[in-house]
Amino acid sequence: MLISEIEHFIQEDLGYNDISCTLVPDVVRSAVIFVKQDCVLAGMEPAHCILEYFDLTIQTDRSDGDELNAGDTIFKVSGSAISILRAERLVLNFLAHLSGIATLTNQYVQQVTPFSNARVASTRKTTPGFRKFEKLAVIAGGGDPHRFNLSDSIMVKDNHIKMMGLREAIRSAKSRASFTNRIDVEVESADDAVVAAEMGADIIMLDNMDPAQVIDTVGLLKHKGLQSRVIIEVSGGIGPGNIQEYAKTGVDVISVGSLIHHSDWIDVSLEMSDEG
Amino acid sequence: MLISEIEHFIQEDLGYNDISCTLVPDVVRSAVIFVKQDCVLAGMEPAHCILEYFDLTIQTDRSDGDELNAGDTIFKVSGSAISILRAERLVLNFLAHLSGIATLTNQYVQQVTPFSNARVASTRKTTPGFRKFEKLAVIAGGGDPHRFNLSDSIMVKDNHIKMMGLREAIRSAKSRASFTNRIDVEVESADDAVVAAEMGADIIMLDNMDPAQVIDTVGLLKHKGLQSRVIIEVSGGIGPGNIQEYAKTGVDVISVGSLIHHSDWIDVSLEMSDEG
Amino acid sequence: MLISEIEHFIQEDLGYNDISCTLVPDVVRSAVIFVKQDCVLAGMEPAHCILEYFDLTIQTDRSDGDELNAGDTIFKVSGSAISILRAERLVLNFLAHLSGIATLTNQYVQQVTPFSNARVASTRKTTPGFRKFEKLAVIAGGGDPHRFNLSDSIMVKDNHIKMMGLREAIRSAKSRASFTNRIDVEVESADDAVVAAEMGADIIMLDNMDPAQVIDTVGLLKHKGLQSRVIIEVSGGIGPGNIQEYAKTGVDVISVGSLIHHSDWIDVSLEMSDEG
Amino acid sequence: MLISEIEHFIQEDLGYNDISCTLVPDVVRSAVIFVKQDCVLAGMEPAHCILEYFDLTIQTDRSDGDELNAGDTIFKVSGSAISILRAERLVLNFLAHLSGIATLTNQYVQQVTPFSNARVASTRKTTPGFRKFEKLAVIAGGGDPHRFNLSDSIMVKDNHIKMMGLREAIRSAKSRASFTNRIDVEVESADDAVVAAEMGADIIMLDNMDPAQVIDTVGLLKHKGLQSRVIIEVSGGIGPGNIQEYAKTGVDVISVGSLIHHSDWIDVSLEMSDEG
Amino acid sequence: MLISEIEHFIQEDLGYNDISCTLVPDVVRSAVIFVKQDCVLAGMEPAHCILEYFDLTIQTDRSDGDELNAGDTIFKVSGSAISILRAERLVLNFLAHLSGIATLTNQYVQQVTPFSNARVASTRKTTPGFRKFEKLAVIAGGGDPHRFNLSDSIMVKDNHIKMMGLREAIRSAKSRASFTNRIDVEVESADDAVVAAEMGADIIMLDNMDPAQVIDTVGLLKHKGLQSRVIIEVSGGIGPGNIQEYAKTGVDVISVGSLIHHSDWIDVSLEMSDEG
Amino acid sequence: MLISEIEHFIQEDLGYNDISCTLVPDVVRSAVIFVKQDCVLAGMEPAHCILEYFDLTIQTDRSDGDELNAGDTIFKVSGSAISILRAERLVLNFLAHLSGIATLTNQYVQQVTPFSNARVASTRKTTPGFRKFEKLAVIAGGGDPHRFNLSDSIMVKDNHIKMMGLREAIRSAKSRASFTNRIDVEVESADDAVVAAEMGADIIMLDNMDPAQVIDTVGLLKHKGLQSRVIIEVSGGIGPGNIQEYAKTGVDVISVGSLIHHSDWIDVSLEMSDEG
Repeated sequence: MLISEIEHFIQEDLGYNDISCTLVPDVVRSAVIFVKQDCVLAGMEPAHCILEYFDLTIQTDRSDGDELNAGDTIFKVSGSAISILRAERLVLNFLAHLSGIATLTNQYVQQVTPFSNARVASTRKTTPGFRKFEKLAVIAGGGDPHRFNLSDSIMVKDNHIKMMGLREAIRSAKSRASFTNRIDVEVESADDAVVAAEMGADIIMLDNMDPAQVIDTVGLLKHKGLQSRVIIEVSGGIGPGNIQEYAKTGVDVISVGSLIHHSDWIDVSLEMSDEG
Repeated sequence: MLISEIEHFIQEDLGYNDISCTLVPDVVRSAVIFVKQDCVLAGMEPAHCILEYFDLTIQTDRSDGDELNAGDTIFKVSGSAISILRAERLVLNFLAHLSGIATLTNQYVQQVTPFSNARVASTRKTTPGFRKFEKLAVIAGGGDPHRFNLSDSIMVKDNHIKMMGLREAIRSAKSRASFTNRIDVEVESADDAVVAAEMGADIIMLDNMDPAQVIDTVGLLKHKGLQSRVIIEVSGGIGPGNIQEYAKTGVDVISVGSLIHHSDWIDVSLEMSDEG
Repeated sequence: MLISEIEHFIQEDLGYNDISCTLVPDVVRSAVIFVKQDCVLAGMEPAHCILEYFDLTIQTDRSDGDELNAGDTIFKVSGSAISILRAERLVLNFLAHLSGIATLTNQYVQQVTPFSNARVASTRKTTPGFRKFEKLAVIAGGGDPHRFNLSDSIMVKDNHIKMMGLREAIRSAKSRASFTNRIDVEVESADDAVVAAEMGADIIMLDNMDPAQVIDTVGLLKHKGLQSRVIIEVSGGIGPGNIQEYAKTGVDVISVGSLIHHSDWIDVSLEMSDEG
Repeated sequence: MLISEIEHFIQEDLGYNDISCTLVPDVVRSAVIFVKQDCVLAGMEPAHCILEYFDLTIQTDRSDGDELNAGDTIFKVSGSAISILRAERLVLNFLAHLSGIATLTNQYVQQVTPFSNARVASTRKTTPGFRKFEKLAVIAGGGDPHRFNLSDSIMVKDNHIKMMGLREAIRSAKSRASFTNRIDVEVESADDAVVAAEMGADIIMLDNMDPAQVIDTVGLLKHKGLQSRVIIEVSGGIGPGNIQEYAKTGVDVISVGSLIHHSDWIDVSLEMSDEG
Repeated sequence: MLISEIEHFIQEDLGYNDISCTLVPDVVRSAVIFVKQDCVLAGMEPAHCILEYFDLTIQTDRSDGDELNAGDTIFKVSGSAISILRAERLVLNFLAHLSGIATLTNQYVQQVTPFSNARVASTRKTTPGFRKFEKLAVIAGGGDPHRFNLSDSIMVKDNHIKMMGLREAIRSAKSRASFTNRIDVEVESADDAVVAAEMGADIIMLDNMDPAQVIDTVGLLKHKGLQSRVIIEVSGGIGPGNIQEYAKTGVDVISVGSLIHHSDWIDVSLEMSDEG
Repeated sequence: MLISEIEHFIQEDLGYNDISCTLVPDVVRSAVIFVKQDCVLAGMEPAHCILEYFDLTIQTDRSDGDELNAGDTIFKVSGSAISILRAERLVLNFLAHLSGIATLTNQYVQQVTPFSNARVASTRKTTPGFRKFEKLAVIAGGGDPHRFNLSDSIMVKDNHIKMMGLREAIRSAKSRASFTNRIDVEVESADDAVVAAEMGADIIMLDNMDPAQVIDTVGLLKHKGLQSRVIIEVSGGIGPGNIQEYAKTGVDVISVGSLIHHSDWIDVSLEMSDEG
């Protein structure tokens, strides 16, 4: 994390005169940061950066993706008591929010694994200003981050197709994309999936299809010899109740916005030692 | 929202060359933004600012705190189709996340109202960089934002008391606080609550007490003639299952971190018109 | 001080190619920073941060609020001569301006103390972009910073009352303020002071009253049993010539914009040693 | 003023939720901004920018440098009452602080004018982060801003000379300066002034000399035929009590740090109309 | 271009008090911006944004990629003469530098076209802080921007292979890349090209091979049935003297750093009208 | 270089998740940065800052202005292999671009030296956002940076004269310039040069004159006894083919935009060691 980013977050929580933190004497103390729930850990890099920013000494052997049990320690830190109080809430907010995402992602991945090698991917439905961290938490949970923003790959979506027609939209995308970008085309029918694959789409995103429709579409693409040339993605209305059904359809990628926006925080806490 | 804030968020989603948006012809279109679930609305001010930033014409009679039914329109917008595509995801992310918080807050408030005038308040457990918006969503849902950061009021918390003792911590806080700040003291026993109130704390925060302990503590403060001089707050382990028990205890404020960190997004969508 | 803040100030003074500083050979030198006038010291934290930013070694046992005599040393620093020249003007500007504020504040506090425990408070009349430092200098001088900005407490002022009426303005403020905020109501008559106190204002600010009117108003509030429930503040037209009169009125807070905007710089200087 | 600068200042004063401003109904109102003291006006450009930022309609025929009498109107503004309240304090802080500088500068200039064409110049003793505005206020008062920062001209000062010797310092400066920069050399004796002039300094700054010494030095430079080749500047310990003595010495520039750091704010006020 | 970006550039050129621009009276004038050399135009979007930022009225029917002849007008602008002078240098610097890149890119593309459909691509050898604009100029010239930064696609380069071995590096890249990223593997021999293709690299970058080696490698990939599954890129030492040789080899992409770093500015000028 | 500047550049090249860099194991490695062409070195300060930002250990005895031969090492660095990969491209881009400018500048200076002491100066034709570094590279090559921006000296140019007339423009400039600024007046005839010199211009810039006209103008100024009072600058259409002709005319400064905008990158490379 860049120093300017760290300070952007610190400024939000500290304000101009954090009397609460400076109430305590400026002595050396140690503290542990630990989880109170089982979880998959995420947010280690930003947590590390924030603790270091406050000149705290850090001990840890955890890293993103570790499976922790309730009670497990993430960090031991020591240094100025004032600095520990200043870092506390921000570090916990990172770890709690991001481990929540990693844990939910991992639950979805666990559901999919028995049936498929399909990747579980997130979307651009992220908290504004916090996407980078949320996508890295998806990776920590075993998921795929999907594209980061509108510039790093090209998706032809329903609103494009409504305005331009499917063929014209793909043609335009192909002529404008860099050779380093994959082109992802969102379709709502098996026939459109075939058109997109034939026209050279790299990824076919089956939008809001039920598992049966997905199976038909995958079948049709296979029948036409197109399946091996494209990555097949499903998206729309997928959650814990039906993700296994989609896992069985043979698709390559299952995209789920709720990895991020329906995750709950993990309970993470900091406890200061009695002595220095 | 300041322009620099808007651009901070836009830059995250657009990147350097948003080919997807510029695929479509630069024609005028209109679109509606609507909810697919019942909810309490929040995020209208940032949504408005973002749409205006992209020079879109806006029609709406909604405001933060409105109760919407599934299918209700929030905005009608019109303008450049490219601009609509650029604004789409960011506006939806604001509305979906913030209306989720307002809706959950409002559910808690609805539970409390039959039994108490107590305020339902949030905490500093917020997404880094997004606290301002999340606190405003709590207000939209009928809740109280609580302090914004470490500088705008003073809390004497467990870690202070561990290091300094209760009396010394309060004494220090009182000598250092501005007369504009209320002093909030976190206590874990009825006796400490009495000490804090007698020493002039403005707010007594009863931490992790069960409802019975809270009733005892409120009773003791009343008995000692201290209740009218302080605001009594409860916090710790409060959720949908027990908030009504706390509402019945006679406290003034019920603080609940999960208003923000256990809220789920509301399903909000943008649909472009077929024609300009 | 955040690194981004330090650099904001450094950039202003250094520009793109500070030839003057780099004229000298890059040798190690030491220097002392000292005052040429008696003063109350302020600005130690930013001065420290700037010197550290330039990798200078610092020796000091001074802190904000110390009373210094002409000739007293604030810092001994050593390190690259070029770095000393780069830090010089910025450090001196901080110390001179902020110690000026602390010194004037302290003079006012000294005038008030024999007659009253009233706090001497500053206002929002501060140099744009420099309020944080100026408010901290007021604290260093023994004063109260008052609210930091429009969001960290609520003042009902003349223009609100003109537009809404006193009662409606207070009612609206009370319904919208967080329980963590005190509500400060500005009044121009004793009767309005009573109304405000009865409606639950936390702070009554008596605006532009002469000492006799203030005594009457305090008396009336006491008579009505309201004095103990509110903090009484006076503001407007208070300076060195009359602050003692206000101190004798029994108010709790005396707010004086000129603490900041009529303070003069303290003469602070840096002298480089002859040898390294 | 750049939008990013305006927002830097606005953010300081508004914070995250300016309830005070939004108490009032969102109606159209007008207001006047006027001075309560005679003064020389400064700060019109930033004031204008801030008022425009808040979409207020502005009427004014004043500009920087105008001499105003107590009671004179600077601006009439109209627009949203909420916006007027938001802009109020920031606009007044700019106008009051900067007009204070312009007024003090002008008093010094008035003292000098009967005796000399010498320019009255400011120094780098400015409020950190606010130099640009303070230097422009000096110009508004009829003064000279002097160099803006360490890069836009070269001064050889006492600490350089202590480390390098006078001749070597000038030699080094001349070899490194751009032809667009003037070289300003600070000297403490008439002999050094001659050396500096002979070596090609463009400006000779006589530091901490009393008027008699200045007269001698100017005389010696004239005698040696050097006066017409250099600009002669005096600095150090000059104030209202002795500036006329320096004006009579024949120097070209009189530099006075106190133009900025001993100026007091002008009393500027905003009054809202009773009706829209 | 974001407003914060525009202001970053404006601040560099204007500084704090642009006396030169404000010498002229504040009257309305018009001006033309025109080229003095034949070129392919680029930089229209930033030029447009800057002119608009200064409230100038703009007339133009040019867009990025247009082929212009010496003397052709790009923009007619009108508005405040001061604003025209302020915008002048910055707009010209954008147009001259970016049209230089577009023009050189286009010359390379013209050389390739008779022999091949291969794309001419740029690299990450760009002016720090200006990559976005330089890559968009490559697109204006008919080239391919290649990846924007280290995060938007994955390249396995010589230093990776040196440390990890080719197979391990590709295996690691494949396990860590998002399905939205193409994996680009740099190889120095035909055999390694085959290994990379067989292991599933999406792009094979032939580094520093001469045209004969490239032909052999392409032949080998074709022979092994791998050519259709990969994009073949060449890079290293390619310039105007040999690009046609590479064009004839059958590769898909020819990457050339010098598109950007050996381009020269186009001569672009602004001429103010005699009258308003 | 400020940390905020370094991070501005790093962010551009790294993006949010630089998988390529983190492919390699996090081991210690060393690397050399060396040139592949003869050149004059520039960019050492920013290169140093970037390498230090990544906590790399640096060995070097080179500095800006050194003449290097193909193969010469600039830096030896050691530290985390991941950090070396992260720093690589950015450091090389700085060194290659800036050494290109220093090298071209130096070639021009070498051409001038046998005939004249005239300085070779750059202009404001620089890459937006990168002027500071480009001007410092000109200095490294032995050139003069000329003014940095519109505020640090005053030029009266053709568009001013067109609007105001020569005399009025100079009069206005002289009345508004600080005594620290030199006034540079652009003229197109010998007569105007005389007028400008007589009115007190400090620098006379002869615009677009051929060498014969320049000789005539210099002669006329000398004849009128004005030459010693002004700095004579030529600009416009000067390049490698005619710079010697201008060097022989007796002018003081030869300004050449192409120092910067027609320079080509020097080939600079980083090679990682085989072992740690």
